[in-house]
Amino acid sequence: MAKTLIKNGTVVSATGRAQADVLIDGDTVAAVLQPGSTLLGFEIERNVDRVIDAAGKYVIPGGVDAHTHMEMPFGGTQASDTFETGTRAAAWGGTTSIVDFVVQYPEQDVLTQHQVWQEKAAGNCAIDYGFHQILSDVQDSSLKAMDELIDEGVTSFKLFMAYKGVFLSDDGQILRAFQKGAENGAMMMMHAENGAMIDVLVQQAVEAGNTSPYYHGLTRPWQAEEEATHRAIMIADLTGAPLYVVHVSAKQAVEQIAAARDRGLNVFGETCPQYLYLSLEEQLGAPGFEGAKWVCSTPLRSRAEGHQDHMWRSLRTNDIQMVSTDHCPFCMKDQKEMGIGDFSKIPNGIGSVEHRMDLMYQGVVNGQISLERWVEITSTTPARMFGLYGRKGVIQPGADADVVVYDPNGHTSIGLGKTHHMNMDYSAWEGFEIDGHVDTVISRGEVIVDDEKYLGRAGHGRYLKRGLSQYLA
Amino acid sequence: MAKTLIKNGTVVSATGRAQADVLIDGDTVAAVLQPGSTLLGFEIERNVDRVIDAAGKYVIPGGVDAHTHMEMPFGGTQASDTFETGTRAAAWGGTTSIVDFVVQYPEQDVLTQHQVWQEKAAGNCAIDYGFHQILSDVQDSSLKAMDELIDEGVTSFKLFMAYKGVFLSDDGQILRAFQKGAENGAMMMMHAENGAMIDVLVQQAVEAGNTSPYYHGLTRPWQAEEEATHRAIMIADLTGAPLYVVHVSAKQAVEQIAAARDRGLNVFGETCPQYLYLSLEEQLGAPGFEGAKWVCSTPLRSRAEGHQDHMWRSLRTNDIQMVSTDHCPFCMKDQKEMGIGDFSKIPNGIGSVEHRMDLMYQGVVNGQISLERWVEITSTTPARMFGLYGRKGVIQPGADADVVVYDPNGHTSIGLGKTHHMNMDYSAWEGFEIDGHVDTVISRGEVIVDDEKYLGRAGHGRYLKRGLSQYLA
Amino acid sequence: MAKTLIKNGTVVSATGRAQADVLIDGDTVAAVLQPGSTLLGFEIERNVDRVIDAAGKYVIPGGVDAHTHMEMPFGGTQASDTFETGTRAAAWGGTTSIVDFVVQYPEQDVLTQHQVWQEKAAGNCAIDYGFHQILSDVQDSSLKAMDELIDEGVTSFKLFMAYKGVFLSDDGQILRAFQKGAENGAMMMMHAENGAMIDVLVQQAVEAGNTSPYYHGLTRPWQAEEEATHRAIMIADLTGAPLYVVHVSAKQAVEQIAAARDRGLNVFGETCPQYLYLSLEEQLGAPGFEGAKWVCSTPLRSRAEGHQDHMWRSLRTNDIQMVSTDHCPFCMKDQKEMGIGDFSKIPNGIGSVEHRMDLMYQGVVNGQISLERWVEITSTTPARMFGLYGRKGVIQPGADADVVVYDPNGHTSIGLGKTHHMNMDYSAWEGFEIDGHVDTVISRGEVIVDDEKYLGRAGHGRYLKRGLSQYLA
Amino acid sequence: MAKTLIKNGTVVSATGRAQADVLIDGDTVAAVLQPGSTLLGFEIERNVDRVIDAAGKYVIPGGVDAHTHMEMPFGGTQASDTFETGTRAAAWGGTTSIVDFVVQYPEQDVLTQHQVWQEKAAGNCAIDYGFHQILSDVQDSSLKAMDELIDEGVTSFKLFMAYKGVFLSDDGQILRAFQKGAENGAMMMMHAENGAMIDVLVQQAVEAGNTSPYYHGLTRPWQAEEEATHRAIMIADLTGAPLYVVHVSAKQAVEQIAAARDRGLNVFGETCPQYLYLSLEEQLGAPGFEGAKWVCSTPLRSRAEGHQDHMWRSLRTNDIQMVSTDHCPFCMKDQKEMGIGDFSKIPNGIGSVEHRMDLMYQGVVNGQISLERWVEITSTTPARMFGLYGRKGVIQPGADADVVVYDPNGHTSIGLGKTHHMNMDYSAWEGFEIDGHVDTVISRGEVIVDDEKYLGRAGHGRYLKRGLSQYLA
Repeated sequence: MAKTLIKNGTVVSATGRAQADVLIDGDTVAAVLQPGSTLLGFEIERNVDRVIDAAGKYVIPGGVDAHTHMEMPFGGTQASDTFETGTRAAAWGGTTSIVDFVVQYPEQDVLTQHQVWQEKAAGNCAIDYGFHQILSDVQDSSLKAMDELIDEGVTSFKLFMAYKGVFLSDDGQILRAFQKGAENGAMMMMHAENGAMIDVLVQQAVEAGNTSPYYHGLTRPWQAEEEATHRAIMIADLTGAPLYVVHVSAKQAVEQIAAARDRGLNVFGETCPQYLYLSLEEQLGAPGFEGAKWVCSTPLRSRAEGHQDHMWRSLRTNDIQMVSTDHCPFCMKDQKEMGIGDFSKIPNGIGSVEHRMDLMYQGVVNGQISLERWVEITSTTPARMFGLYGRKGVIQPGADADVVVYDPNGHTSIGLGKTHHMNMDYSAWEGFEIDGHVDTVISRGEVIVDDEKYLGRAGHGRYLKRGLSQYLA
Repeated sequence: MAKTLIKNGTVVSATGRAQADVLIDGDTVAAVLQPGSTLLGFEIERNVDRVIDAAGKYVIPGGVDAHTHMEMPFGGTQASDTFETGTRAAAWGGTTSIVDFVVQYPEQDVLTQHQVWQEKAAGNCAIDYGFHQILSDVQDSSLKAMDELIDEGVTSFKLFMAYKGVFLSDDGQILRAFQKGAENGAMMMMHAENGAMIDVLVQQAVEAGNTSPYYHGLTRPWQAEEEATHRAIMIADLTGAPLYVVHVSAKQAVEQIAAARDRGLNVFGETCPQYLYLSLEEQLGAPGFEGAKWVCSTPLRSRAEGHQDHMWRSLRTNDIQMVSTDHCPFCMKDQKEMGIGDFSKIPNGIGSVEHRMDLMYQGVVNGQISLERWVEITSTTPARMFGLYGRKGVIQPGADADVVVYDPNGHTSIGLGKTHHMNMDYSAWEGFEIDGHVDTVISRGEVIVDDEKYLGRAGHGRYLKRGLSQYLA
Repeated sequence: MAKTLIKNGTVVSATGRAQADVLIDGDTVAAVLQPGSTLLGFEIERNVDRVIDAAGKYVIPGGVDAHTHMEMPFGGTQASDTFETGTRAAAWGGTTSIVDFVVQYPEQDVLTQHQVWQEKAAGNCAIDYGFHQILSDVQDSSLKAMDELIDEGVTSFKLFMAYKGVFLSDDGQILRAFQKGAENGAMMMMHAENGAMIDVLVQQAVEAGNTSPYYHGLTRPWQAEEEATHRAIMIADLTGAPLYVVHVSAKQAVEQIAAARDRGLNVFGETCPQYLYLSLEEQLGAPGFEGAKWVCSTPLRSRAEGHQDHMWRSLRTNDIQMVSTDHCPFCMKDQKEMGIGDFSKIPNGIGSVEHRMDLMYQGVVNGQISLERWVEITSTTPARMFGLYGRKGVIQPGADADVVVYDPNGHTSIGLGKTHHMNMDYSAWEGFEIDGHVDTVISRGEVIVDDEKYLGRAGHGRYLKRGLSQYLA
Repeated sequence: MAKTLIKNGTVVSATGRAQADVLIDGDTVAAVLQPGSTLLGFEIERNVDRVIDAAGKYVIPGGVDAHTHMEMPFGGTQASDTFETGTRAAAWGGTTSIVDFVVQYPEQDVLTQHQVWQEKAAGNCAIDYGFHQILSDVQDSSLKAMDELIDEGVTSFKLFMAYKGVFLSDDGQILRAFQKGAENGAMMMMHAENGAMIDVLVQQAVEAGNTSPYYHGLTRPWQAEEEATHRAIMIADLTGAPLYVVHVSAKQAVEQIAAARDRGLNVFGETCPQYLYLSLEEQLGAPGFEGAKWVCSTPLRSRAEGHQDHMWRSLRTNDIQMVSTDHCPFCMKDQKEMGIGDFSKIPNGIGSVEHRMDLMYQGVVNGQISLERWVEITSTTPARMFGLYGRKGVIQPGADADVVVYDPNGHTSIGLGKTHHMNMDYSAWEGFEIDGHVDTVISRGEVIVDDEKYLGRAGHGRYLKRGLSQYLA
């Protein structure tokens, strides 16, 4: 098994940093050591296969993106990244684990769907992957399947309060699923938007001829998000289940989560880079059909209302605990274009899996978050939240050797023809400039990206059998 | 320099745990390694001077008690623990660093006082020690001294809103000191009780013949604490200074701190074991003069009002960030007894420096906090909060080798004649039983407590030149 | 037309009291005058038909009970009071106006239902009556009917978030109805309980054999009420419609309403005497099937959790604006008994229309509210809230002469065989003693109750064509 | 005694309006009657001395301005309006009662000061007047004087948290005064600004050469107001005293008051027209020394921060209960000019006693408040708050005949050379246009203003012996 020494770097964790060398032996981290060539006289560097000099650079645990939708079938098409293209793009960006979503549509069997997704991913991934389970049809059989899936390492279950007839669970179904989560310890994930309200607003907008992408934002107002967030919290409160609200975008939803936390509930919130950087006015409101690039749900919010600033602040104060991408890419051609003349037909999703680590690092450069917080929200907390910590989310002996060497003196230009390895014909992040660079990416001991070269391979990535959340209070 | 290997233990950090060995070389941690006898074929165990087998035990960073008052002169007497006895007791209990308070009384020179305290401590301490500076007289010279002290490693300054004529600063003085803190990055610490209100209530109680220790609690109502906490927050908000509220005991004060955090301010709160376990009714209300044992300020709060439960919850949700002791011991004989017939003459203080790690561990046993949170609130966050992280608060290469081996299968009975090495003729914690045990304590590579024996020495402890807070958002 | 002088009383309004005489000429108040026999020399007392001496008594505007359900068909039976018996009982208790609910069940035509109820009431009422409209099926035709009903004097529309298949509207329907209310100025009323959650809990309880009336309370937890209240507020916020939450019982729901008010929304809350005086533990938890007497929805709340005290406080601070009865009586025999062995079959409702004025006056005696507040929450605000002010809710020239002479030195014992004129075989208020007494009740100039005698008649009461709310900010 | 009939007007109260005639007999209202010439055949109009036709106009209770400072000595000068000029100006504007402040400066005797002010006012006032008592020196004798003054009709006592050495009480003094208030039922009034903070900021600004009037605003930040407001609330909570916060200008202070109300405390807030209409940027920031015209404390707040909108909203929702003027006029010449080159020398105060009714009526026109709310916040609530209700604040039999006929079709231009009867050489309200007009003002039955003519006289106004607050919950 190959032995690698990453020397002279600054190892950054969620709580601080250290000048330390990292010794990798095979798949795992063997040791973290004081810099220098010897340990008790033993010359380490001479006994390894490869030495990476990280002087002046950050050595961080590989990114964990806990919210992706590779090749997800949705709205008559499917997300444009396969497990192969999507995980490769992730690797390029310093993400070494994803947790993707198995979809159960109504009347489908949960366990069968789990198998389908296992097969989709098997042999195709560049990095390690786990699964959450989407439940669109909470029946007795689904509840029973929850127990079985936990044994298979699927310990988190996502429900939807929107998308009637596709994903939506009613409050009784949600209650029953949460009761099960309270019993078996599963994390309950929620798409918290009031679909019934939104469906009326969308129908009214389309009938009124308001069909441009901008109306996607206007028909999903913050009230629909605050409402559903509060409702999910009430059900969590009643049942005792832990709750994780996905892709929080409205400041009012954050306030509900913060209030629940202050009351002592295990209620958490994830946001995504798009809710930190992009806005209703600038992106969704772009001329013509251009805004379709940024049609995702929850939608981009108004900058005038201050959601973005509030979200950065909430990241700082841990009212929002982590950042995922909700990576769900669609091409403009043939896919987004389905919604020309009717925004409600635009497939919902933005592709960001490749850029999350860079975009959040820019938050460090801009003074929005600390360096330690960057590692915490992109790797350590995602790993803890979803039962991967120890293997992932930390550089420590015995951990999977998922390590990124990040150069704060490097530079990254995002966009087509630059970085961009996702299977999309546009970039939602075109033109973003990052004052840092992913130099080297190591996944379970193998260098899969180095010096602008992809050295990985489909099939290197393995399925991650996850434990219960390690983040509960 | 001596080399020590702690093998087979569970290393616990603020974010998680690992099965790992810790190699100490001289003063510092040289490496954290996968368990097993060899590293790349090199047999470590054969090359060290001492091996500690921690199988089945927790290996944690030594405790950091950021609030002690050794030999503090107060009210015509002085705290009964010297730096020698107090730090030795701390060592017994797994605390390997303290941050004590230099006192400036009105009209004293700040820098001179700093020197006086340096001399008190020098050569006497069993463990490492740093200093905060108390400012009781905010003059231009004091503000200037703040800058100088930061260069000396004193990066936090404590003001009082109570104790008129002794410690109290008026709001104008507080404002000026906070302005300086905002400028030079110092952490502003606050004793947040409204002394003017309390002084009236105390005088009225004594005049009415209500002189027993119980009235110490009744004359320092939660309103006085909430009020002062909010006032300090407003001054922090106005100036931009970071604020650390010491010994928070009232739930209403916690709510003020939580609200400030939710607004994005760098406002933090410390609580102490007494506010988690003890109460107005049970301890302060003990028959006769017995309650004097627990006279401290802020006072123990009413259990009927739910302060203790609220405080545990706030520890879980990080609305309260850490636990110190406010160790300020006085003997009953000759000291506490000064207040027979007039509670206001009882020296204020409780001694806990020896028991903090155990008492908080019992919170883990009782399901109040997680094992990781135990390490975080007793060591990692105190180190980050007060600029010690890297050396203290974490087990990582290059860190000072301050390590505690804690046995979750051991047992500790607290009280006189049992554990009790503080210089007090009673124990505020008499009869507390802990389902765990401090087995071995290592300070900068030296084993100072092992197997119920004290192996340390006065003078081993060194002064800690601290940096600015590493906990700011 | 008969002329009546009420002399020497203390006229109480929502803002204060006056020593004044009230002159009634025919249907209406002709003047309010300084006490004494003459006005500018004109001897009034000699020129009237009847003189009522109210010395030492309160002269107040007749009570307005804005929430009754006379002869309402529900659950295979119907409320046991007809418009005749119910309004007569109301008269006995000093209530001179009710606003009852027209029911539209799904697929029924709204306007037809309005006619049905008009016919039920016509010629049968002892006092004046108006109607709210229940919408159980929000279709385009229902929305159109809202406009037409406003012209008919029905200016408030009630929706339900519970009772699936019977009353429940989904959030899209609610949104559409609220949009209409925002447009035409109607008050939107809401039964705010999450029916989907409740239905699951009820089913689980029954399946588990928990069938006694006590479980009615346990299966409708405060979370279901807070949730629905917040949801309704969000829809009100989004649309701009005024919102009136009926029968608020949980303190958490009050907090949501108060927060909405503080944000400037036209959101109001009504409570009922049962939520102020009775509790889950004492009444619903009575032995055997006894608790069925107090099965109503929202349910009685736990006294241990403090809902009752919180509700009184909210009445004082105007976080709750008024008190109605939700009068919906069922007899134990043949009606409540339908639920022996299955609490979910117990018809929901309590009868209080007769006792509201007395029960709330006892709040004055007990120091819970002021005398003025009594008049405000039982008469003035109900009249303003629902567009009756000027005619009802105030004693002023031109107002309908609905006047009650209330004796603070009298006494009232509530219960079967004492006061009790409702058509019920039990009293939910058995044994309540009131330190006051309804002496005389005048409805549009006619004395309908006096000195323990009923002098009214079916058919005296007229339909009240109401205007839009006069309470909006 | 003269008899007057005001006929055909719309009588507006705090809760609604009525088409009614008002009959005045001598000092008091004799009756409120249905419009029309006869009562039971008696022809009223023929039996009165004077008939005022108010057709198309509002008939309202005379304004009660509960916060004025006539001829107050302050800062080496005194307020430019005497009791004679100030009350005459008030009359012009439809205000028929003021409550002025007796000043006790340190070491002065409270009761002596009360006598001094009684003598200042006696024989000089155009309208009725009462007194609050300022306590600047809370000694045992002052507390004793509180009891005595209550017997004299002074039932409210004002303390200051600012103006050290002049007015400021420390928190112990405030606590003792509030204890007395809790005991004898007096309303405790508070100037809630943290003077110690402000004094430092002022000194620093002046030292830095920031001497223009604009810095008056910047050196009294909202934090100083929120802080003091919260502190006063805590003392009210601890003691149980009712609290009335004067001249609230910051939205954060309003939030503190609203939170206290929601907790059930008798805590109230008054605002003034300047905090509703004027701003830091527009008025205080006027070029040169112009801003001095609007130097008052609390200061005008930033419009960019939204204080003004928040204040209107709080008026609507009753989080702020009433509007006074804090009338404290100073001329530019010789008075305001004292602060050229040093804003801290500018006498603090704005003159508005003449315009309050008009300015608040414009809020009705602008849709900010309802017509009823106008009457409530300018007359009814002030009367209730300060124990005048029954005589003042309402048009009802037995009330003092203080009545204003207000023409909604009239127009009022405010400014020098237009309306302006205050003794000031400038108007703080220059150029304000009001869509309404004070037509006729009656004080205790005498017409003192009519058709742009002043018909009153110095000495008509009598001292108002007030009772305890009638507004407590």
